[in-house]
Amino acid sequence: MDIKKIEHIGIAVRNLETARTFYEGILGLRCYKTETVEDQKVKTAFYRIGEVKIELLESTDPEGPVARFIEKRGEGIHHLAFKTGELTRTLSELDKKGVRLIDKRPRPGSDQMEIAFLHPSATSGVLIELCKPAGADEDQS
Amino acid sequence: MDIKKIEHIGIAVRNLETARTFYEGILGLRCYKTETVEDQKVKTAFYRIGEVKIELLESTDPEGPVARFIEKRGEGIHHLAFKTGELTRTLSELDKKGVRLIDKRPRPGSDQMEIAFLHPSATSGVLIELCKPAGADEDQS
Repeated sequence: MDIKKIEHIGIAVRNLETARTFYEGILGLRCYKTETVEDQKVKTAFYRIGEVKIELLESTDPEGPVARFIEKRGEGIHHLAFKTGELTRTLSELDKKGVRLIDKRPRPGSDQMEIAFLHPSATSGVLIELCKPAGADEDQS
Repeated sequence: MDIKKIEHIGIAVRNLETARTFYEGILGLRCYKTETVEDQKVKTAFYRIGEVKIELLESTDPEGPVARFIEKRGEGIHHLAFKTGELTRTLSELDKKGVRLIDKRPRPGSDQMEIAFLHPSATSGVLIELCKPAGADEDQS
């Protein structure tokens, strides 16, 4: 698989404003964007640290995936996203290798990305997202 | 705080060999080092992705912190490590600000680093490690 870098780390928080107080006030990170992603039922705050982004995720719906994650495991790191050169073919290859996928095809994500999740049962418990910039040619991103 | 980059992401796994099969065989990452860290009761496998390292962590002791983490929360991302320019003064400043610390002073970590952990109760549930290369002058690493 053509992994280019860790694109972002998603952190599930109960309250975005409380979490921002720590990440901005204590760690000194600067939020460069906030965004609500209807598809994933989250509102997010984005930070850049070197080549990696941190996304703080608060659920907008008690039935959303981030709310369910917090209910089950508590607040904490929710997922790890790898930037890939191409996505459709990669998912097809993983499927053929028997890797359990949440998304067999790319779907729209936050921050103008196309994304797909692998199932944590395939990855030693880590919810792994694969992503590439939306609209970028396969193998060109 | 002077955060330079995300140094590594620590992933708690039940069985290092099983996890390596996924991270190497499926994701195609190359392990550049394995190490046993007696102080933390873990054996680790290290990978580089861009400027960030991934550390897979298997406990060597059923009472070790990684074993206790897995017992409580299951396998998954265990901690997030930020590289800082200096550590002793940062810990003192965080302590004065009332941030709950696991380590008030730096201690030896893996991969020739001095490390200290913040308590997850201070960080929206994320076990955050601060680290700098061992022996590097403060503010010069």
